[in-house]
Amino acid sequence: MSLINDCVFCKIIRSELPCVRLYEDDLVLAFLDIAPFNLGHSLVIPKQHHHSITTLPEDCQGRLMAVASKLAAATLRSLKADAFNLLLNNGSCAGQEVPHVHLHVIPRFLDDHPIFNPAKQQYKDQAQMQETADKIRTKLGE
Amino acid sequence: MSLINDCVFCKIIRSELPCVRLYEDDLVLAFLDIAPFNLGHSLVIPKQHHHSITTLPEDCQGRLMAVASKLAAATLRSLKADAFNLLLNNGSCAGQEVPHVHLHVIPRFLDDHPIFNPAKQQYKDQAQMQETADKIRTKLGE
Repeated sequence: MSLINDCVFCKIIRSELPCVRLYEDDLVLAFLDIAPFNLGHSLVIPKQHHHSITTLPEDCQGRLMAVASKLAAATLRSLKADAFNLLLNNGSCAGQEVPHVHLHVIPRFLDDHPIFNPAKQQYKDQAQMQETADKIRTKLGE
Repeated sequence: MSLINDCVFCKIIRSELPCVRLYEDDLVLAFLDIAPFNLGHSLVIPKQHHHSITTLPEDCQGRLMAVASKLAAATLRSLKADAFNLLLNNGSCAGQEVPHVHLHVIPRFLDDHPIFNPAKQQYKDQAQMQETADKIRTKLGE
């Protein structure tokens, strides 16, 4: 319980910390990110405290995406953005800074600087690609 | 119809182009990205052709996220990844390369190079933040 009580996003949900709210329902809350990549960058979070989206109930996973999509559409129209990214960083080396699931809705503009490092890797061959898929599929069925 | 017929991902769904499949159900298909950020990087796509997630039916938006979450969990366990990103680029200046909705599931490791440009913007003051939120909320209700 101390983890939940100390969580910054749980405090926002309980109105113990301020935020600029955009949307709220029984499962999720959306508000502006205070350190935006672009102005209008927002976060959609579940009301239940979960560090990882993998442990979140499926209806709540789905609601996060449905609300983020509506919020993205509203952001495009209201801020005249050209595009958007939806981004969920899960784990600290993926860039997760607050250990409570949050889905970023990031408006993008034609003259933006690049957000992503273009470096990519290559599978050595088809066999390595198949082997990688086999490993994942095995765990997917568990 | 020609747009749908020419779409690379629609061709993958119709098995007219190959892919390394990871999962399939009535609404979505998941397969390995052929230009991965890290090996095991996969894509979850809706079977319906939509350029933007904002026009996708809500059940399909939700399914994308639920399947991506399961796939991410399987990827973590199978590839001993430390974390993951879920990323949806919507629109060309957001990095969308194929005009058919696709949600990236990107395994991440402690020794990865940074994927994101850390440059961030700041709201000038609370008023600008509120004004931005007001614009978005207005469009959210439409």
